[in-house]
Amino acid sequence: MSVRPSSSRSEDVFAGVLARGGAAEQVSGRAWLRALLDFEAALARAQAGAGLISAEDALAIEAACDPDLYDPAEIGAGAATIGNPAGAVVQVLKAAVPDAPVHQDATSQDAVDTAAMLVAKRALVPLLHDLRGAADAAAALAEAHRDTPIIGRTLLQQARPTTFGLKAAGWMVALDEAADQLHSVRLAYQLGGPAGTLDPPYTLDLGLDRPLLPWHTLRGRVGELAGALGVAAGAVGKAALDVVLLSQSEVAEVREAAGGGSTSMPHKHNPVAAVSALGCAKQAPGLVATLLAAMVQEHERAAGAWHSEWRPLTELLTVTGSAASWLRTSLETLEVDADAMSARAEGDTGAAATLVQRALEHR
Amino acid sequence: MSVRPSSSRSEDVFAGVLARGGAAEQVSGRAWLRALLDFEAALARAQAGAGLISAEDALAIEAACDPDLYDPAEIGAGAATIGNPAGAVVQVLKAAVPDAPVHQDATSQDAVDTAAMLVAKRALVPLLHDLRGAADAAAALAEAHRDTPIIGRTLLQQARPTTFGLKAAGWMVALDEAADQLHSVRLAYQLGGPAGTLDPPYTLDLGLDRPLLPWHTLRGRVGELAGALGVAAGAVGKAALDVVLLSQSEVAEVREAAGGGSTSMPHKHNPVAAVSALGCAKQAPGLVATLLAAMVQEHERAAGAWHSEWRPLTELLTVTGSAASWLRTSLETLEVDADAMSARAEGDTGAAATLVQRALEHR
Amino acid sequence: MSVRPSSSRSEDVFAGVLARGGAAEQVSGRAWLRALLDFEAALARAQAGAGLISAEDALAIEAACDPDLYDPAEIGAGAATIGNPAGAVVQVLKAAVPDAPVHQDATSQDAVDTAAMLVAKRALVPLLHDLRGAADAAAALAEAHRDTPIIGRTLLQQARPTTFGLKAAGWMVALDEAADQLHSVRLAYQLGGPAGTLDPPYTLDLGLDRPLLPWHTLRGRVGELAGALGVAAGAVGKAALDVVLLSQSEVAEVREAAGGGSTSMPHKHNPVAAVSALGCAKQAPGLVATLLAAMVQEHERAAGAWHSEWRPLTELLTVTGSAASWLRTSLETLEVDADAMSARAEGDTGAAATLVQRALEHR
Amino acid sequence: MSVRPSSSRSEDVFAGVLARGGAAEQVSGRAWLRALLDFEAALARAQAGAGLISAEDALAIEAACDPDLYDPAEIGAGAATIGNPAGAVVQVLKAAVPDAPVHQDATSQDAVDTAAMLVAKRALVPLLHDLRGAADAAAALAEAHRDTPIIGRTLLQQARPTTFGLKAAGWMVALDEAADQLHSVRLAYQLGGPAGTLDPPYTLDLGLDRPLLPWHTLRGRVGELAGALGVAAGAVGKAALDVVLLSQSEVAEVREAAGGGSTSMPHKHNPVAAVSALGCAKQAPGLVATLLAAMVQEHERAAGAWHSEWRPLTELLTVTGSAASWLRTSLETLEVDADAMSARAEGDTGAAATLVQRALEHR
Repeated sequence: MSVRPSSSRSEDVFAGVLARGGAAEQVSGRAWLRALLDFEAALARAQAGAGLISAEDALAIEAACDPDLYDPAEIGAGAATIGNPAGAVVQVLKAAVPDAPVHQDATSQDAVDTAAMLVAKRALVPLLHDLRGAADAAAALAEAHRDTPIIGRTLLQQARPTTFGLKAAGWMVALDEAADQLHSVRLAYQLGGPAGTLDPPYTLDLGLDRPLLPWHTLRGRVGELAGALGVAAGAVGKAALDVVLLSQSEVAEVREAAGGGSTSMPHKHNPVAAVSALGCAKQAPGLVATLLAAMVQEHERAAGAWHSEWRPLTELLTVTGSAASWLRTSLETLEVDADAMSARAEGDTGAAATLVQRALEHR
Repeated sequence: MSVRPSSSRSEDVFAGVLARGGAAEQVSGRAWLRALLDFEAALARAQAGAGLISAEDALAIEAACDPDLYDPAEIGAGAATIGNPAGAVVQVLKAAVPDAPVHQDATSQDAVDTAAMLVAKRALVPLLHDLRGAADAAAALAEAHRDTPIIGRTLLQQARPTTFGLKAAGWMVALDEAADQLHSVRLAYQLGGPAGTLDPPYTLDLGLDRPLLPWHTLRGRVGELAGALGVAAGAVGKAALDVVLLSQSEVAEVREAAGGGSTSMPHKHNPVAAVSALGCAKQAPGLVATLLAAMVQEHERAAGAWHSEWRPLTELLTVTGSAASWLRTSLETLEVDADAMSARAEGDTGAAATLVQRALEHR
Repeated sequence: MSVRPSSSRSEDVFAGVLARGGAAEQVSGRAWLRALLDFEAALARAQAGAGLISAEDALAIEAACDPDLYDPAEIGAGAATIGNPAGAVVQVLKAAVPDAPVHQDATSQDAVDTAAMLVAKRALVPLLHDLRGAADAAAALAEAHRDTPIIGRTLLQQARPTTFGLKAAGWMVALDEAADQLHSVRLAYQLGGPAGTLDPPYTLDLGLDRPLLPWHTLRGRVGELAGALGVAAGAVGKAALDVVLLSQSEVAEVREAAGGGSTSMPHKHNPVAAVSALGCAKQAPGLVATLLAAMVQEHERAAGAWHSEWRPLTELLTVTGSAASWLRTSLETLEVDADAMSARAEGDTGAAATLVQRALEHR
Repeated sequence: MSVRPSSSRSEDVFAGVLARGGAAEQVSGRAWLRALLDFEAALARAQAGAGLISAEDALAIEAACDPDLYDPAEIGAGAATIGNPAGAVVQVLKAAVPDAPVHQDATSQDAVDTAAMLVAKRALVPLLHDLRGAADAAAALAEAHRDTPIIGRTLLQQARPTTFGLKAAGWMVALDEAADQLHSVRLAYQLGGPAGTLDPPYTLDLGLDRPLLPWHTLRGRVGELAGALGVAAGAVGKAALDVVLLSQSEVAEVREAAGGGSTSMPHKHNPVAAVSALGCAKQAPGLVATLLAAMVQEHERAAGAWHSEWRPLTELLTVTGSAASWLRTSLETLEVDADAMSARAEGDTGAAATLVQRALEHR
């Protein structure tokens, strides 16, 4: 009965650079479809639990909520009819289980918003894994190079000595704090019905919070998530920029073992991972701006602002995840030339080493 | 020998809303692959024309530059190696025609930048077609309703009468001007070689300008294109917002024949096209900001800023094209309730009608 | 000895619209000067407390750190010399107390970053006051109109009944949550010295956190603050947009008592407060994007990104504060036409009223 | 009778860095006031010319339109009443010439929009002067160093030789093209009356185009101007970044004679001008995004989006002008160490020199 083999391979020719790590797969078309179906299944389960529909119907609906049975492209085409994909999902479900009370009491935004939160929750798992992994790699560098002198550079001019450990400890702290913030973002399901007035006698078992009120046009959650992703991308970008600058031919204090040459210039050793991390991270601020601007929504359902969230949210999760993945690789494979560092840095670095120690202990 | 059937079906569950019209297909992964190959083919052709490689080799390279022979997903995965997809393209080409001088003298950015301009040029065809189509529809409304009184609304309060024709003429002028600007954006190929110093004795026959200088890190063209797309999206958004507002239940002066109900509320008649146009248009400003920020690039090849252009450019062409396509549908199918309009608007509208006439004649 | 009378009057001809409320004054040039001087005074106090400088010197420095003694314009002109205003501040202080150890151990970014956090902390007081005030006004509306039927509007089409109380409760919850987030933003002083390696045996008594590490180029705090302000602006914008839409001539379900006419059309009654709130709130997302993009900073002091924070942070605090102030006025003076609302809304609104009650009790 | 001495001194403590050059003064509160008054004077003049008001009245109005007679701060405070400053301007004018037909037929947006265009036109004079000046300085460097070898750097790794002249020629071309685009931006006055239906039998002699239609909510002009300023800022930022990178202690191929030390580290020689240029340029993209987002406006007068333009436009002109001014200083005072450059670059640079020559001749 399978309509189409599940495939997460994207046709994106830039995927290897801009969609690295596990987040991209969690926000793919098929992942969105899965999340939309998960909403419908959870709704049926909850309604059966509350005695509002029969257990039989709920089981039938749940069985039909298998993303491998449907084609995301078909759902995508069908989204044009009412302006969002939930209608098309309901339609194929109703065709699959014609007698079951699919999507009862719910409105399409309930499905799409809940799916957005599910998709975000699932994408945050690999994203946070890579962000923490990058922080771990930074911590290891901080520990190994607590006392390794390096010249501090202000406005890209050599200033006074610090230690490479302190630089790495800074990356670590910034990445850790960004991960903590992301981890604590409030993710809730949506179940307000057509006009946002629903107060259902059941909850959805999707691992998402039950919201105090329907939030169809109260988009603080999306804005917070966007802001936290933007900060995470910024923390990644800072560390990646330092790696790129330290890798310069004239500086050569670090070297990405994972780096590579170019087709025309095989002698080069480019810090591909840090460069790619930057390429991803730089896309975040504009996407955050779009999501914040989209918070200004009309009445009980927005006429455009809501629709303008879907792709930026998908992209923001993708590029932040990709940036974190690249940075992790960069830092995990970083070769440090302590001699080159020390040669440029004379003077006392005791305070720097103390700061490193404190930051590591605080972790 | 075909590796994979060409498919432009996206798995995007939002495609029907956010990727309407012809532009999306021109910026798909396969379209990018085609453009990357077009660069390699044009390069070989030009070098053969200049006697730098044999005509035989050029023919072999051209024959190998068929996008249906390769898998965009494979190229996308390969892009990770050097941080962009050109290397992977060159690799599969060299495998296909091992003895031919593929990619000679060029650098990967030559291929990717030229492909970006080709992709943009091709996406602008349907995009401008829809933008002009929307302007035509606005012109028809302006002509038909030159004298139809409607109350002018300032700060969403009824103010003084104008005509619906003048409102439509305003949309027309804004759309026309945006299309003119977009049409005149300078698109050039790139061929600067590894350090941007190449001065080849031949030109590429790709329908793109020959640039005065290699522009690997001089991104004015990208910035101009972005700005013009942003203005076009804004012009579309303005008209779409007016349609949405005039369609309000309490106003009901226009009605989208193309509009539709919702699954939970079949009695509704939502202006789906105008809403979707707004949903697309609102994504543009953040993408423009990313592309403008990416203009600040290092030396002869940017370490991240360049990479941060690819997806925003792709998205910006997609959403602006989609917005234009939706607006065109909205305006082409707009039902105007002249009685409802007139009932709220008393007073002289002669000057408004004169302005409409002038704008139409100026077209 | 006073150089110039303290004046907080701005020459800005838009100030009445775009710089309303108390935040603007807390981010004025004079306020920044005061904060820069507060840093120097606190530093001297702390160093005297730790026995590093004499109590006499500390008192002399503190006495000299009076913002009324100096001219912000002169400091602003002097900022050109080293690229930030701290040097000019130190210069006038050294002229005032030539023998005292002004700015000892500190670097200019210590002063400017600490001042930024102080300015933010002080601007957040009136800003949060207005945000909470707007939430209070929304709560009062929610309570008074818990059961007042109003038609729910989705995509600006009449859908199903809700209550005006639920609409207002939504504003309340969104404003409260945004205020909570803003309130919990981490604000810390900066004291890292020239290369960010300082570990001083004292703390600054400025009501700011002591940071784990110097954060000269670790800008998570700025990013978080920006994100939280962006979310607050979005929450304000949503409520303001609803007021504007409900105030439309054709809807007329609410009316701003504070609203006013126009010079050319005295018969109009524009919702000036809600419109102005929107005008302010819409400026936030772009400013947030700039601040997030500025997180990508070089080594121990950024060559431009740091400098790009000062004005956007100032503006973001100003416009968010102004938006909150306007919304508070709008909601506090809102006249509700319950009859007009009820006339359009038939049907059961019991669940809506229950939701209102729960939201109010949760407060 | 002078109310207050004209003062362009800002209290901004960052002015020396972020508001350098002549543009800032042209967008000050007093400059906006002057432009608002210029509109009223031109309107009276034109109406007298068309015989609609008496020559005597026009002279009286013109005499009253002297910005030194009024206080921008008072106008700013008065702007709160109707939500924009035009009403307050009209009020003080009517007080000054009680019997004259001030502001006849016009609406407040006519005054504010025309003032915005005037302010932009006037700010563009010094801005373009500095942009061209920076391009001239780049041209001089290109000519002087046409053949000076320098290593080309891709992804911040040494790649192949180019010439410093070609690098400078690239800056020149990008700056010239940005200036050309800015120069050609369409600036028109506004005169549509309360509902945008006015078709006056006269034109305003303000050096601005007569628009085809009133453009109260057709904001293409603002969007185009924003885009062109964003591109100019990007072109400045690119050159400034190269200067900063070439100035690095480890590279030391150029040195800003205008650069300076820091208070704590007098041995440093920071490229203050290039750093400040970057600090300014990086603020542009977010401002452009705000202005583009503001294009989506309601009916005949926007309820917030219009208001959200004023400050971003003011800021965008300021920071782009400041960036251009700083870059001009940086390039005009740049000391080039041709020996250091040559030492790292071996190989043929003939093609690079040819490209420089062509770019210079094309100028």
